[in-house]
Amino acid sequence: SISQDIDHILETQSALAIDLGGTNLRVAIVSMRGKIVKKYTQPNPKKYEDRMQLMLKMCTDATRDAVSLNCRVLGVGVSTGGRVNPQEGVVLHSTKLIEEWSSVDLRTPIADVLQLPVWVDNDGNCAALAEKKFGHGKGVENFVTVITGTGIGGGIIHQNELVHGSTFCAAELGHIMVSLEGPQCSCGSRGCIEAYASGMALQKEAKRLHDEDRLNVDGMDMKLTEPITAAHLINAAKLGNCEADAVLNKASTALGVGIVNMLHIVNPSLVILSGILASLYQAPVQHIISERALVSAKNIKVVTSELEEPALLGAASMVLDYATRRTY
Amino acid sequence: SISQDIDHILETQSALAIDLGGTNLRVAIVSMRGKIVKKYTQPNPKKYEDRMQLMLKMCTDATRDAVSLNCRVLGVGVSTGGRVNPQEGVVLHSTKLIEEWSSVDLRTPIADVLQLPVWVDNDGNCAALAEKKFGHGKGVENFVTVITGTGIGGGIIHQNELVHGSTFCAAELGHIMVSLEGPQCSCGSRGCIEAYASGMALQKEAKRLHDEDRLNVDGMDMKLTEPITAAHLINAAKLGNCEADAVLNKASTALGVGIVNMLHIVNPSLVILSGILASLYQAPVQHIISERALVSAKNIKVVTSELEEPALLGAASMVLDYATRRTY
Ligand SMILES: [Ca+2]
Ligand SMILES: [Ca+2]
Ligand SMILES: [Zn+2]
Ligand SMILES: [Zn+2]
Repeated sequence: SISQDIDHILETQSALAIDLGGTNLRVAIVSMRGKIVKKYTQPNPKKYEDRMQLMLKMCTDATRDAVSLNCRVLGVGVSTGGRVNPQEGVVLHSTKLIEEWSSVDLRTPIADVLQLPVWVDNDGNCAALAEKKFGHGKGVENFVTVITGTGIGGGIIHQNELVHGSTFCAAELGHIMVSLEGPQCSCGSRGCIEAYASGMALQKEAKRLHDEDRLNVDGMDMKLTEPITAAHLINAAKLGNCEADAVLNKASTALGVGIVNMLHIVNPSLVILSGILASLYQAPVQHIISERALVSAKNIKVVTSELEEPALLGAASMVLDYATRRTY
Repeated sequence: SISQDIDHILETQSALAIDLGGTNLRVAIVSMRGKIVKKYTQPNPKKYEDRMQLMLKMCTDATRDAVSLNCRVLGVGVSTGGRVNPQEGVVLHSTKLIEEWSSVDLRTPIADVLQLPVWVDNDGNCAALAEKKFGHGKGVENFVTVITGTGIGGGIIHQNELVHGSTFCAAELGHIMVSLEGPQCSCGSRGCIEAYASGMALQKEAKRLHDEDRLNVDGMDMKLTEPITAAHLINAAKLGNCEADAVLNKASTALGVGIVNMLHIVNPSLVILSGILASLYQAPVQHIISERALVSAKNIKVVTSELEEPALLGAASMVLDYATRRTY
């Protein structure tokens, strides 16, 4: 029957997804249904040449495996840190998290080697696309995804489409400022929500407290040799360390006020938090919205993402959505 | 010839524009070319019933005059303070600036009396539409208009269309927060750019300085009886009053940081400042952008509006654009 045919197509049609992050370079075969069929992970090389070479090698390996896994690869989707021109498939500019990563044409070499169409967007935008296709954003016309990990990023869906902006700098949500002064940010400005609420920012505060011997509390099990991280700060706060708690409060308030700014600018109907700190921030951000947003925005919901691999799923969705549009 | 016919149509086709502001209720006959053919101004009544009655009376007078002025009125456009549902033509909610102005259906009574199609949007959005059709926004796909008057408002054009948002609360630009604490805002929150940089905010600071006898400087001509306004503060700063200058600096910085937030969220290619304080803020805001925006947004231009009547022209443009789409 036709429905069986479509089921079969949905199971065999798939995308190659690439995730170029600060730490790892990952490739995955992703099915039309959003299942990660096979995944490959390597440390992301520091040098441009090595990175390109490894990426292409991982892609050819994956396409070969795809054949034996009965996956028909329709195209390649790339999620990368940095600002991206998705029309050209070019990384325009990246922060220090990924070195030697400015003015890099990703589409041409990948398309040449694999003979497949290639889509590229930044990780924040890919996360939003992943939510739209497979997560809380399904069927939601206007929403914002905020990723709170090492840094803070995100993507904006307006009328079912990503907002890229005039210089592909829209949804640079980490650099929304909530203070005229405030802590120094890696971008050169001050008072950005990334400088208050990112994993990096919390780690910095944890180290400061630790150096002043004010982090450790009774019941906290800390080895002398282990590096101080945001997790220690969170743990200390849970165990009653007031200073650690104050740092987290400030971070939550900053993130919440930044998100209220998004509500007053694009007014989405939903805010999706993803990344490692999402569950920490969900309740306080919802509270700040109820306190500081305008009446008509007070009831906008904040939810925590349930996707395990937003970058890879979002990268895949660029391929799968395009394929779907053409096929049916 | 056809081109003469079109010229004639363009000269006779016109819109009735209504501007419902905090102080005045105005009606105008506006030609297709953006010429204000005739304008009517009355104080905006404080009571809902009086306001509606006066508005309908002014409209019927204006449509009668339009006939003798050889203007064919195609429809009615309404610009109003407050949040508006433009699909329904309803004012959802307004600040204290316009009293008794919540859940008001403007479309039905106007359409009933005048037997014409009616469009309604808020003043900030109308200002953006006016720039799009008649001002600096002509041919610009993505731009933001920020109105710095008594309060701060604005509108966002994304891909040639207004952004209204999920609860018609998009582009509430006055309530972008640039401080976790900061001055109290009329919206109930703190640190909004309206609380730093609006005419109201400057007036409040002027009064404070005046009360402490620190406003007046040599060469400043102030009558004892005249009310203290933002203009006194600006004048004092020009004449070398350091404290007045510091207040303006802080206001400019707050507005600039708020506008950088807009750039990092929707990334327009142009920022248009309008309202009475626009020329005061243009240069400092451009400077703050160059200092605090991401590399890819640093070069976004800030210009001062050249439109004399953004609200009326924007209201008219809703009618004229729709008529144009249908006619040609
Ligand atoms: Ca982004
Ligand atoms: Ca507005
Ligand atoms: Zn920053
Ligand atoms: Zn406010």
